[in-house]
Parts: sequence; C-alpha cells; structure tokens
Amino acid sequence: MTDTGNAVLMSGTDVARAITDRTAQRAAQFAEKTGRKPCLATVLVGDDPASETYVRMKRNRCAKVGIESKHVPLPASTTTAQLVELITDLSNDPAVNGILLQHPVPAHIDERAAFEAIAPGKDVDGVTMHSFADMAFGGKGFASCTPAGIMRILDAYDVDPRGKHAVVIGRSPILGKPMGMLLLARDATVTYCHSKTQDLPSIVRTADIVVAAVGRPEFVRGEWIKPGAVVLDAGYNEGNVGDVAFDEAAVRAGLITPVPGGVGPTTIAVLLEQTVDAAFEQRA
Amino acid sequence: MTDTGNAVLMSGTDVARAITDRTAQRAAQFAEKTGRKPCLATVLVGDDPASETYVRMKRNRCAKVGIESKHVPLPASTTTAQLVELITDLSNDPAVNGILLQHPVPAHIDERAAFEAIAPGKDVDGVTMHSFADMAFGGKGFASCTPAGIMRILDAYDVDPRGKHAVVIGRSPILGKPMGMLLLARDATVTYCHSKTQDLPSIVRTADIVVAAVGRPEFVRGEWIKPGAVVLDAGYNEGNVGDVAFDEAAVRAGLITPVPGGVGPTTIAVLLEQTVDAAFEQRA
Repeated sequence: MTDTGNAVLMSGTDVARAITDRTAQRAAQFAEKTGRKPCLATVLVGDDPASETYVRMKRNRCAKVGIESKHVPLPASTTTAQLVELITDLSNDPAVNGILLQHPVPAHIDERAAFEAIAPGKDVDGVTMHSFADMAFGGKGFASCTPAGIMRILDAYDVDPRGKHAVVIGRSPILGKPMGMLLLARDATVTYCHSKTQDLPSIVRTADIVVAAVGRPEFVRGEWIKPGAVVLDAGYNEGNVGDVAFDEAAVRAGLITPVPGGVGPTTIAVLLEQTVDAAFEQRA
Repeated sequence: MTDTGNAVLMSGTDVARAITDRTAQRAAQFAEKTGRKPCLATVLVGDDPASETYVRMKRNRCAKVGIESKHVPLPASTTTAQLVELITDLSNDPAVNGILLQHPVPAHIDERAAFEAIAPGKDVDGVTMHSFADMAFGGKGFASCTPAGIMRILDAYDVDPRGKHAVVIGRSPILGKPMGMLLLARDATVTYCHSKTQDLPSIVRTADIVVAAVGRPEFVRGEWIKPGAVVLDAGYNEGNVGDVAFDEAAVRAGLITPVPGGVGPTTIAVLLEQTVDAAFEQRA
C-alpha cells in the first residue's frame, strides 16, 4: 500500500466501477428494447503499440458491459481524405451509435478534419468543436472523456468546485481546454497554465484544485501544492508514472488521485456511458 | 482632457480607424472585382431602443466603408422557429456575406438556436459554437468581435500576452469566454473570474493584463490594479461609464482603455473587417 501521507486517496477505479455497472444495466435495457447492442466504432490509423493497447482495452471493456465494438484498423499511409470519408460513412451508418478515433493519428493526417467528420450525436469521445463549445456553454452535448471523468471523481468525493480556484496545467484540445471549461461551468475560478506560464509553482500554490495534464512524469512537485488542496493527475507516462510527484504531493494534498487507478479508469467509463447515451438518443 | 494618472491611454478609436481604413479599401476592391458591395444582414428582434441604436450605428459604419447592409427588423413576438428559419434563409442567400443577429434577443427566444442557424462562413460577429471552438483551437474562423478588438488594441500598443498573467472578469459566451481563449492562444496564462469568484481583488492584483467584462459600472477598483498592469475595459454602462473605475485605475495602470473611445469602436471595426473577409472567402 502506497503511503498517501495526509491525503485521502480518490479511487478512480471505484468511481469508474459505479459508472460502468450502471452503463451495463442500461446497455442491457437497450438491447432488450431494440434487439441489438449499442455499437461503438473504433478507428485506429497505423500500428503504434500504445494506441493498439488503448483500443484493445476499450474494446474489451465494451464487451464486458454489453456494447458491441466495430473495429476499423487503417494503414499508417491513410490520407486525411480517406479517413474523413470513412468517418463520414460511420457518421451516416445507423448501426453505429458512437465513434472513437484513437489519437494521436500519424502526423501527415489533419486530425482536426478527421475529428470534425464525426457527427455531433455520435461524438462519444467528445473531440469535436461542437462538443467543446457545448462543454463551454453548459449544453447537453458529449464531454471529452478524461475531463468528464475528473468531474465525476470530484462529485464522488463531494468536492464542489463552486468558488474554488482551480488551476489546470495543460491546454490540449481534448484535455486541458475542456477541463477548464467544465470547471468554469461549475462555478470554479479557473486558471489555465502551460509551457509558457511564468512562475508556475507560485500559481499552483494558490490552487484549491489542481489538474495536471502535462504529459511529463512527476512534473508537478509536492512543494507546489497548497496544504489541503485537491490534486487530480491526468498524466500517464511510461512506467505507470503520473504528472504529479505523488509521494511528495500526498503529504500536503487533502485529496489526491493515484496513477494508475485514478483518472485513467474513469476516462473509459465515461466513453462507454456516452456510447449508451448516444444509442438511446438516436433511438428516441 | 481626462487625467490618466501614470497610465498611457490606449485609443480604441485610433486602432479602429486603422482597421476601418483598410477595410474600406478592401471593400472597394471587392466591389470593383464583383460589381457589388459586400453585404451584411442585420437582424433585430423587437424594439429595444439601445439595440436599435447599436444596429443603426453599425449600419451607418457599413455605409461609410462601402459595405451594403440589409436590415431585417422583426416584431418582438417572433418565435424561435421563425427566427431560425429567417436566419437559415440568410445563410443560404448568396447575396448576403455576413449575418449579425443583434443581441440580446427577447427572453422567449432560444438565442443559442438562433445563433447556430448562422452558417459558420457568414458568422462575422463570431457568435456560433463553431467560431468559439475555432478561437479556442487557434483556427482561422471568425472571432467574437469585442475580444478580437481587444487583441487588436494589445497588438497596436505592443503588448505581447505571451507568458503574462491575464485575468478576465466575466464569462459570457461572446465576451469573457472567447476573450480568455484568444489570450490563451497567444500564450498568456489565463484566469477566468466571475460572480462566484472568491476574493476577486487579490486575484486581479496578480494580473499583468486585466479585461473587465462584467457589465457593472466601475466594478473594478483602482486599488485592485497591479502597478504597471494593462487594463482593458469592455464594459459600457449607462452614462458612458465602463466596468473599471477609470480615474482610480489610471493612477496605477501602465496602459488603459478609456470609455468611450476604447474597446467599443474596435468591436464595430472588427465586424466590418470580418464582413469583407467573408465576402472575399465566399467568392474564392
């Protein structure tokens, strides 16, 4: 058992299990009503081993909860036009309820163009511009899965962001940026930090809630953490290491997510949940 | 002449004039090439006197720079469905290059639905979800006019947001939220504050750049301003009063916009510029 210092560990595994159990029930209800399972299309371009592993994990989890997955592997040489055409076909295919394009895609592909070919109603991974704006404006669209998973962890541990100062480190289109928007929609004061931020430690020291989404192992140091702060580590670096120096941070944090078993499991749980949501909505 | 204390006054009027002069030249080029002027449709629902004044100002400015405006006044009783239909028609009308829906619309109308009926290529006021996400992701879509005008003021006065701490007070979909995204895209560290923010003064005191977009007269006090900070006042309250207590703030700020003659004029200038951009793009 890891020493968590003073901090209470927030178990993403537990939060994910609760989401997944409910999703399995709803998937079964859907199948009973319609005679078919909800279906997630998974698109993988190229043969990056990490991406292959992620997609396999997601498909296994689909199978466990009663979601069919339709896997579409494409060669690394796929062009943007070919990928857009394929995703457009999936968007128009009534047998497909949700679409996941595993990223990153090879560098020669215009990832944004590929994402935008996903119909908003099938964007269960929350990657389209429409979904992003919906998160920002508090609408009912699908959320980017990792930020949405983090919100579920906060809710599960009764952390109300309202009026709190949340510092998001990282500003990627599917993680940092939507994370800040979801926290802002829940009335947090939100600061976006990134590689150009000056004196990051002193900004993090003012944070009641810290979300690390940098992609650099143990980048956030324990001494940056305000005593009692809530620390969420969305990083997942080689060797099961997060973006937060866990042992240091756990001494000061009030609540903290581990890596693994923190944010990661909730990401997949939200993906599955949104796939079932999509299936029901398309039937409605 | 107003006493600006230690601060240098940033003249939005001057910045707007430079944009407008160039826009007039380009509008003339467009007319020469195509035999018709660029055309902005202005849609006004109801008879709110302030909104009528704003639309009239915008149409007068259009006329001055060689942009045709097609005004569509609608009764206050217009339904969401009727408004959406009308805007969809304008989106499909090849004679219309840009569409401005004057807001706020009457409370019974779903404003978001009306905005979303504007084709992204004609969203010269930058109000659609597509335009918002484009601002956030650094794309080439149209920008929300007031935040874009503020960026132009910063550029004109050689304020590089990179690495600076920018505090945006307000989080509306067409002002505060896109403002933060535009500053973030230019590598500022961005904090969103709003009505639920705790201890706003101490957060503002850490800001190198402050954007006030609250809609409350003289809400931001001078003692909140860090000496030398850049202060942009996007407020425009009754009696020509901004959201910043100007006389107090000017004593401490390094650069500050007045009200009137600050942010306001640049908003209209960007609207006109984007209308001409749209006209050229639709022809390309």
